[in-house]
Amino acid sequence: MKIYEDTDFFIETEESEIPWLKIFTQIEYKELSDLPREKRLRLFELYDIVEVEMINYFSPDKINMASFANMLPRVHIHVMARYKNDSYFPNPMWGEKQREAKLDLASFELFYERLQKRLEGFTS
Amino acid sequence: MKIYEDTDFFIETEESEIPWLKIFTQIEYKELSDLPREKRLRLFELYDIVEVEMINYFSPDKINMASFANMLPRVHIHVMARYKNDSYFPNPMWGEKQREAKLDLASFELFYERLQKRLEGFTS
Repeated sequence: MKIYEDTDFFIETEESEIPWLKIFTQIEYKELSDLPREKRLRLFELYDIVEVEMINYFSPDKINMASFANMLPRVHIHVMARYKNDSYFPNPMWGEKQREAKLDLASFELFYERLQKRLEGFTS
Repeated sequence: MKIYEDTDFFIETEESEIPWLKIFTQIEYKELSDLPREKRLRLFELYDIVEVEMINYFSPDKINMASFANMLPRVHIHVMARYKNDSYFPNPMWGEKQREAKLDLASFELFYERLQKRLEGFTS
């Protein structure tokens, strides 16, 4: 589900038990270093806002960030809020499952709304 | 093995069949957003240099980047050169192994030397 969009970027949700967002560039690039410098810096500013909002709202035990795109070489950044009792911790979400977790987290919908408000001024 | 160090950052190698470096901050931070803004921007500049040098030297099929630090919450960035025929591709290096790879890559030692040269001007 797309929860944010501007001229340069958009943010999608990933279906998961944990809060998990993916930041894409509107124009497709293979690697992070293929982005023009200014856009790359803005991408990391956007990442920073998402991380901070996630921490403030969900109080995770750790934030995980990743950029792989091996199947389809279109660079995007994963932002994940991790908990010691989530199904994969301390492994990355791509690692071996550790348990059947039952997380009791605050509303994802309210978080998306809050993030959207926070990003109102970000549009380039 | 530590291959680079300045006032703010250092770079270590990860033992692997693929080129894999880890960028640490000298001061320990839990999350990327805990870094002061200027240092955060410089970290991503350092990341960019490492990525570009890795691409130019190793010609990987894809660069993978990740920041997890779930076991020990000390933020650092993984930079990995991935190949379609490496042991885990297209999975992340933390995912399920796909095959027993035999990669024939250029000298890691020469790459470290080249990267060190490239980073001579980076010291803050």
